[in-house]
Amino acid sequence: MTPRHVIDLNQLSKEQWMGLLKLAHDIKKHPSRYDQACRGRILATLFFEPSTRTQMSFQTAMLRLGGRIIGFDNPENSSVSKGESLKDTVRVVSGYADLIAMRHPMSGAPKAASLYSCVPIINAGDGGHLHPTQTLTDLFTLYEETGRLDHLCIGCCGDLMYGRTVHSLIKAMSRFEGNSFVLISTPQLGVPQYIKDRLEEKNIPYQEVNTLEEAIPMLDVLYMTRIQQERFASEEEYMSQKGVYVLDGEKLKLAKSSLKILHPLPRVDEITYEVDDDPRAVYFEQTEYGMYARMALMMTLMEQHGERCLEPVPASTHDVHCTNPACITSREHYLPHLFEQKGNQLVCRFCDEPVQE
Amino acid sequence: MTPRHVIDLNQLSKEQWMGLLKLAHDIKKHPSRYDQACRGRILATLFFEPSTRTQMSFQTAMLRLGGRIIGFDNPENSSVSKGESLKDTVRVVSGYADLIAMRHPMSGAPKAASLYSCVPIINAGDGGHLHPTQTLTDLFTLYEETGRLDHLCIGCCGDLMYGRTVHSLIKAMSRFEGNSFVLISTPQLGVPQYIKDRLEEKNIPYQEVNTLEEAIPMLDVLYMTRIQQERFASEEEYMSQKGVYVLDGEKLKLAKSSLKILHPLPRVDEITYEVDDDPRAVYFEQTEYGMYARMALMMTLMEQHGERCLEPVPASTHDVHCTNPACITSREHYLPHLFEQKGNQLVCRFCDEPVQE
Amino acid sequence: MTPRHVIDLNQLSKEQWMGLLKLAHDIKKHPSRYDQACRGRILATLFFEPSTRTQMSFQTAMLRLGGRIIGFDNPENSSVSKGESLKDTVRVVSGYADLIAMRHPMSGAPKAASLYSCVPIINAGDGGHLHPTQTLTDLFTLYEETGRLDHLCIGCCGDLMYGRTVHSLIKAMSRFEGNSFVLISTPQLGVPQYIKDRLEEKNIPYQEVNTLEEAIPMLDVLYMTRIQQERFASEEEYMSQKGVYVLDGEKLKLAKSSLKILHPLPRVDEITYEVDDDPRAVYFEQTEYGMYARMALMMTLMEQHGERCLEPVPASTHDVHCTNPACITSREHYLPHLFEQKGNQLVCRFCDEPVQE
Repeated sequence: MTPRHVIDLNQLSKEQWMGLLKLAHDIKKHPSRYDQACRGRILATLFFEPSTRTQMSFQTAMLRLGGRIIGFDNPENSSVSKGESLKDTVRVVSGYADLIAMRHPMSGAPKAASLYSCVPIINAGDGGHLHPTQTLTDLFTLYEETGRLDHLCIGCCGDLMYGRTVHSLIKAMSRFEGNSFVLISTPQLGVPQYIKDRLEEKNIPYQEVNTLEEAIPMLDVLYMTRIQQERFASEEEYMSQKGVYVLDGEKLKLAKSSLKILHPLPRVDEITYEVDDDPRAVYFEQTEYGMYARMALMMTLMEQHGERCLEPVPASTHDVHCTNPACITSREHYLPHLFEQKGNQLVCRFCDEPVQE
Repeated sequence: MTPRHVIDLNQLSKEQWMGLLKLAHDIKKHPSRYDQACRGRILATLFFEPSTRTQMSFQTAMLRLGGRIIGFDNPENSSVSKGESLKDTVRVVSGYADLIAMRHPMSGAPKAASLYSCVPIINAGDGGHLHPTQTLTDLFTLYEETGRLDHLCIGCCGDLMYGRTVHSLIKAMSRFEGNSFVLISTPQLGVPQYIKDRLEEKNIPYQEVNTLEEAIPMLDVLYMTRIQQERFASEEEYMSQKGVYVLDGEKLKLAKSSLKILHPLPRVDEITYEVDDDPRAVYFEQTEYGMYARMALMMTLMEQHGERCLEPVPASTHDVHCTNPACITSREHYLPHLFEQKGNQLVCRFCDEPVQE
Repeated sequence: MTPRHVIDLNQLSKEQWMGLLKLAHDIKKHPSRYDQACRGRILATLFFEPSTRTQMSFQTAMLRLGGRIIGFDNPENSSVSKGESLKDTVRVVSGYADLIAMRHPMSGAPKAASLYSCVPIINAGDGGHLHPTQTLTDLFTLYEETGRLDHLCIGCCGDLMYGRTVHSLIKAMSRFEGNSFVLISTPQLGVPQYIKDRLEEKNIPYQEVNTLEEAIPMLDVLYMTRIQQERFASEEEYMSQKGVYVLDGEKLKLAKSSLKILHPLPRVDEITYEVDDDPRAVYFEQTEYGMYARMALMMTLMEQHGERCLEPVPASTHDVHCTNPACITSREHYLPHLFEQKGNQLVCRFCDEPVQE
């Protein structure tokens, strides 16, 4: 049984992931078998910050399952922004809808919402924190395009320091056997130490390189992301380095013919347009895979958790406050204080950040 | 037969109200019997000011009856705001849709729209004037939660001077036998004299009190609303008084165990979060009841007035102009001048305000 | 077979037009026969500038064919505006939807989109360039209201210099036998010379007049549009002239009883409200005809081009750049350079403007 609310993809077991991927595969192959699977169900997309692409993907997925959609994409123009608490919004909307997909600029907001919702909540991105359906999309793309999720040499290129989708992908693919990673970035924008620690702990091979060119010949998968100009150490470094992390036809000549190129989109200029026509580019297909992945997830939640119920809100575990200003608890003060002791740190269960002394 | 357009709930007889409440009850109990009741019908939600909650309630209600939805929530960003008259907007949209729910910041706008629409118009709130589906929601909540609409002692707390929903509720509940009212407010924000006159005329018992604490033990129903800070006489008065009109666990100890607490939402801080978990708090259920009430209303209108027709616009009754600057007639000059003589006053049929000499 | 993408109504033959009009007529007469014609299909309305009326017309049309809708109306508030190319947006959305209706402020944007879409694109208005479904609406209105498209004396009144809908209507009606035109405008705002050349070439009778009053007695059809104040030569000229191009009850007395008055809407003050009640006014009916015309078009596209496919992007035909700053090629630099030699001019295939030396 999948969890009632999907906040973090790591709440699910590898077996549950595989179940979702197999279901997504079957939906893609036989869409008409599923076109009434969510008949009579209503999805509410509560987007507290706009993300047109993600919202459309959820909406299309629900419509293709025979369900219906309500929601907002623009709280600035809505009464929701006028001082109402997240709790009240969620209590009310969960009285209308059967399922909620929530996007929010603050870490932990969907987790907070799940405490007060009588229907399942899917995290559709909470600031720089988590975006589980993007990761599920990436997994399904690899599964469909390479036929497996193990024994892959996976390159991750771009801003690996702040790139939420890259961190989640590395964590997810670390759970499958035989995978290795090539981390392609500037020295300043490498993956955080805690991710490297985890890879080492699990004896998963990885290397860090500074150019796309040296990495590309080894790769089965290249996951491209953007480096924003302001992340470079200086204007000069940006000017001298920027081409190094741009994928173009020239660099692609060095790659295996079986390479698969992914990108969470939107791209800006980190992949040139000529690459789009290369059969190894699968980033547009990836968004379509995302729709099937979301169909599988929503259908599963509706089957397993289609009955409304409101669970008791857990009591505060500690007296402290989360110190992360991007955490939803810094704004919504009625939330219980939920922390977990990890080693000698108290970690906030909403934003997953340790409490600073 | 209900009126073709539902602008003011008082257009309906008590029997028609009861018919709607009984239908709403049956829909709530047997939703699947009604899930095709508006099949093929299209509801247009024309929200000339945003009200996310009300719009979602209408949309969900139509979807759960098997119908479809179009509309806008944000005329600032729409071509509708670019100088087009209300008449033209309504003529065009009523060519697309089968039913229109209209929200507008000006009093009388839905009434004005009804003159030019070939499909039924439901007033979804017109400025500080009327909001009939909120009142229907309140009635249905009382009907479901207390099992009756008569012989209730009803407390109304907050800004009773300007509170549109409270005025409508008092008027509506005055039509049932044996009800009494406790009006809880500051001296400056008491109910308008004309409402007290009406209660006295009908020999309906009421009392005015200045604290929630003295009122609460008598009540079967407590209808909470907000007092905005700027409505208090002074900053000092606000600071000294504000707690008096806040419902918290402490005050709730004085209440009957059978009390029902309603609130039109959104709340700000006039009910503390601890009250939410008390079984007497029914304000979140109230929003769900609102969805069923709107289903019953829309289904009834579509059954009785499903054929398109455009009635002749009535001729002006008088030469005068309405003097209320918040009245829709102050902006849309092609509207006929419709007034009714009440005693020695001429009352505008759009905004219900008397003409000032 | 109609073209896969409908960018310009002139891509279709007269026979194809008649096929669409006959289908629209049958849908209007027997709507229930078509209410499942697009079952399971999803229309995406991509409105890069707001046009509430047109968007609602497309949405209603798809819903009345049993299909579903997604889309946006407000790119300012959406992630789509954040630097993403039109190509990427279209590649992604065409992975979700079965049909796209696109509105864009730049000429040629829907043509550009069609190069990268795996589903049909309908141009829902591209700046001052084309608006084929408006023209189809106008044709269907004439067909229904006069019973024919030939042997009509058609008056066009207003800003004929910049009026996109008028140009398209003249071109379209020139393809039918026996039509003649009366062009009613100020000397400065007459139809462009190239249109007069074309009429003369085809021996189609036309005359230019400066007042609505002298024209109106001859007309079978009067197509009204607006002259914006800033288009007059001076403030004085505006003040002295403005009434000349306003249709009111007085001028209407000079008209045939069989006259049909059209207007693309929204109107501002170029038709007085008293005219609305005259049976010769069909501009509100016209918007309803527009819904049927769009139903016929979308249903036909889904029948003939319902399979997804991505055709190869054509190679650049010339080395030059389009010089029109309103052309989509001035913003989206990856587009191929497509031109056609017409006489001694190179004409851009996106915006239809000749290259300036």
